[in-house]
Amino acid sequence: MKAIVLLSGGMDSLVSTAIARHQGIDLAALHLNYGQRTEARELAAFTAIADHYQIAARLVVDATHLSKIGGSSLTDKTISVSKADLWNEDIPSSYVPFRNANILAMAVSWAEVIGATKIFIGAVEEDSSGYPDCRKEFYDAYNQVIRLGTKPSTDIEIITPVIEMKKHQIIEVGITLGAPFELSWSCYERSDRACGVCDSCALRLRAFEQTGLRDPIEYMVRPAYL
Amino acid sequence: MKAIVLLSGGMDSLVSTAIARHQGIDLAALHLNYGQRTEARELAAFTAIADHYQIAARLVVDATHLSKIGGSSLTDKTISVSKADLWNEDIPSSYVPFRNANILAMAVSWAEVIGATKIFIGAVEEDSSGYPDCRKEFYDAYNQVIRLGTKPSTDIEIITPVIEMKKHQIIEVGITLGAPFELSWSCYERSDRACGVCDSCALRLRAFEQTGLRDPIEYMVRPAYL
Repeated sequence: MKAIVLLSGGMDSLVSTAIARHQGIDLAALHLNYGQRTEARELAAFTAIADHYQIAARLVVDATHLSKIGGSSLTDKTISVSKADLWNEDIPSSYVPFRNANILAMAVSWAEVIGATKIFIGAVEEDSSGYPDCRKEFYDAYNQVIRLGTKPSTDIEIITPVIEMKKHQIIEVGITLGAPFELSWSCYERSDRACGVCDSCALRLRAFEQTGLRDPIEYMVRPAYL
Repeated sequence: MKAIVLLSGGMDSLVSTAIARHQGIDLAALHLNYGQRTEARELAAFTAIADHYQIAARLVVDATHLSKIGGSSLTDKTISVSKADLWNEDIPSSYVPFRNANILAMAVSWAEVIGATKIFIGAVEEDSSGYPDCRKEFYDAYNQVIRLGTKPSTDIEIITPVIEMKKHQIIEVGITLGAPFELSWSCYERSDRACGVCDSCALRLRAFEQTGLRDPIEYMVRPAYL
């Protein structure tokens, strides 16, 4: 069996890749550049992780339309990346409108051509930033779109192995599977050392705190979030 | 109300635009370059049609990943564009895997940012080439994905105004609405004069034959298809 892993270079996509590899699946890795602030750093993480797992089939897509379209602090430098507020239930400014549907469409096109039957995505519903395109029901609906919108001879399904996990559980699974967290990158703001205060850093640092382990990447500051 | 029209430059997208305009909707036009053979000619048709309808808001997306991914005679020059076989029910070589899901994702991202609530696409189910992503049930399922994958505050819906029409009905509606067919382009193969023998030309010529009208664009040959 062949599967595509959507590998942003973050922790969730790293552990999803580790899970897919642990199942003995032949992997191909897809990465999206979409004009995000930390694009080059994320691509470096993608490359390092794909090298680590010896994934030869790689596709890096420049989805510049997402930055042209704007609407997110990740791609529009006139909108500032808000500091984390993990108790606020609003959708944060980092939300890129319908981003995951864009990357899924690319992944399905590629899967149909290379004969992959699974697409692994590290979406997290529970313990996340509250993006609407990270919910399980979104992926269930998307699987229906794939069934209806691809050739009858294909059989492609999205797999969300960590969607119901808490962030600290994702770390624990990753540790068990030997995932190289030191190669991953999560910060939305900086590319040298992680800022420690954006939404993505906050979720990551809090999760490591919960496990009692120290995140192996370097931070500017490591606030306590518990 | 604001709507996005997906404007390839072909006849079906032209008439869908005419229908949307006839409803008095404020329009924005989205066009996709995806490495198809006739990309420059289609873009010229897009521009001419958008000029005709005085649509100021335009987004042209270079989706080069679709040509990188390949799998279609439209984007892969090692696969030949098959001559039309309107009685063959197989999916033709021109099928671009999951193309419409890619363009819909882009449209929804853009709609969310500019506040458009409808997306018009000129997909045709009945009288078409049999692409799986042109079926009504595909769009119904996609609308569910949009509801689940966008902000709760948005209300975006895909409209397929010609999906149940026969091609000759699309022409008749277009004529009634004064659609400028002379500005549209459908040929998959050539960019100077339409070839007249590819799948897309054949469907178009047959439909004009059925209406008893002459297609105003120039062809290399005009075979009879009835």
